[in-house]
Amino acid sequence: NVTIETEVTESDPLPSWNEGATKSAIMDFVSDVSNSESQNFIPIADRIATFDNDGNLWSEQPAYFQLFFAIERVKALASEHPEWQTTQPFKSVLEDDMKTLASFGEHGLLELVMASHSGMTTEEFEQIVTDWLATAKHPRFDKPYNELVYQPMLELLDYLRANDFKTFIVSGGGIEFMRPWVNEVYGIPTDQVVGSSIATEFDYNNGNPVIRRLPKLDFIDDKEGKPIGINKYIGKKPVFASGNSDGDLQMLQYTDSNSYPSFQLYLHHTDSVREWAYDRDSHIGKLDKGLDEANEKGWTIIDMKNDWKVIYPFQLN
Amino acid sequence: NVTIETEVTESDPLPSWNEGATKSAIMDFVSDVSNSESQNFIPIADRIATFDNDGNLWSEQPAYFQLFFAIERVKALASEHPEWQTTQPFKSVLEDDMKTLASFGEHGLLELVMASHSGMTTEEFEQIVTDWLATAKHPRFDKPYNELVYQPMLELLDYLRANDFKTFIVSGGGIEFMRPWVNEVYGIPTDQVVGSSIATEFDYNNGNPVIRRLPKLDFIDDKEGKPIGINKYIGKKPVFASGNSDGDLQMLQYTDSNSYPSFQLYLHHTDSVREWAYDRDSHIGKLDKGLDEANEKGWTIIDMKNDWKVIYPFQLN
Ligand SMILES: [Ca+2]
Ligand SMILES: [Ca+2]
Repeated sequence: NVTIETEVTESDPLPSWNEGATKSAIMDFVSDVSNSESQNFIPIADRIATFDNDGNLWSEQPAYFQLFFAIERVKALASEHPEWQTTQPFKSVLEDDMKTLASFGEHGLLELVMASHSGMTTEEFEQIVTDWLATAKHPRFDKPYNELVYQPMLELLDYLRANDFKTFIVSGGGIEFMRPWVNEVYGIPTDQVVGSSIATEFDYNNGNPVIRRLPKLDFIDDKEGKPIGINKYIGKKPVFASGNSDGDLQMLQYTDSNSYPSFQLYLHHTDSVREWAYDRDSHIGKLDKGLDEANEKGWTIIDMKNDWKVIYPFQLN
Repeated sequence: NVTIETEVTESDPLPSWNEGATKSAIMDFVSDVSNSESQNFIPIADRIATFDNDGNLWSEQPAYFQLFFAIERVKALASEHPEWQTTQPFKSVLEDDMKTLASFGEHGLLELVMASHSGMTTEEFEQIVTDWLATAKHPRFDKPYNELVYQPMLELLDYLRANDFKTFIVSGGGIEFMRPWVNEVYGIPTDQVVGSSIATEFDYNNGNPVIRRLPKLDFIDDKEGKPIGINKYIGKKPVFASGNSDGDLQMLQYTDSNSYPSFQLYLHHTDSVREWAYDRDSHIGKLDKGLDEANEKGWTIIDMKNDWKVIYPFQLN
């Protein structure tokens, strides 16, 4: 018994995090609110932790991974859509003209998603995502996209759950694009994923019911949408929120207003060598107002370069 | 050790259910799919069980309990709305004219809900629901509404969870009307509640962020809406679905199409003495097509009068 207790006490739940202010702040908060004798104790039912996904649990450079998926889908479907040869933003996708594609901005991206993520059943879409993950490779690391998840964040998710936090994803990405793989990769079940969604319809289908995906937006889980999505899906204000861009600011503000003690965490991409360095001027994952507000309010900021020993699980010995 | 094992084996997880075909069918299914050596074994992550609420986990007569709540809210707000004295359906509420109120049907009910469930923050609404439950009494039983839950169904929820099923509510009722009390009463956390909802907006509120409820419909979780809501919130097809009306039929059909073995359960209100007896011709909780399809497909039907030893927890010795 003595041996076991010593082991537990001495083991480090966050071995890929360097010692320092960030790691201490996280562990101090979690120990404090999980301690039933602390005045900051939070009952288990209220230990809600929400995590942004793109650029926060996995990388998002050189473009959102869901955009690579949408591009592959558009190419796969192009033979059924001869009009795409002459219609933007499809034309630039088919011509591998990423510069022109980028010029269409968020609206162009949404058009690609609508056209390529709808028209099939939810089960068919799940299979398409699964097949893509099994075959597609990231242009820089030549690894499946879902291996580009952050090892230190995997440890943080485990650590929170070991302390009876319920962990959720709250992402601007597509909810059904994430659900097929997040349980295996993050240990987060499908019903604990909040994301952007398109409308669906029920089809009795002669006794073989299916849900069909429609080319119509249902919900955008970004900025103000994040607290709205949290209220809609979770129904409780989080006590721990983690993000990496201005799109997460409202989620962090909302969490900060909890009457329980709460923790706000921003991941700052500062590692131009092992990952990417970007913040205020980036088109992807812009972190500007959020950085100012984090500094003002004393929220915790992860300095990727200095706080993390390793980035991805495949880099572990 | 021997004593403990005997106790567990001999204890009855469903003591308020009479022995018979219904109880056996439930227990046979749960034992079979939880047994890792059975060919019907279902992995824990896929053991999703969905329950309708009104008339299935608690009573719904002489009117939906949420209608009693809406009526009380309309009366409480009437002084701020002099126009309601002469505008239907509000006029009939203020005159206690339930017959005229009923003539406005679902649409009238929706108007009452919009007017009385919006305009406040989500936290204010939660407090209003909690206060109502603490003071309002059911007209027949003179008990708080959330004591009119079905003891046998509480046991079924516990039994399923003891066998690693994840239990969800999937109800046509308001999601935020249910969330304040369902964890205490049913052991179901707020994020495992699917229901009808109104739109909300995020208000930064000078650094004290709140979510405001708007008089605008967001989602109706009934009929085709139930499988759509299940896909939206849970992201997995259930293996166990329980309801009491034609509004649950699509949920049961959807569950029945699971590639795993699945269980469909209808509660038939047959007890005119201890509860109410109603089915094909009822305006509330109409069970007509569902009853035919249950008989055709061999789904399990609870005969409330004969299958249940007791209806409500307060009737236990
Ligand atoms: Ca992000
Ligand atoms: Ca019902």
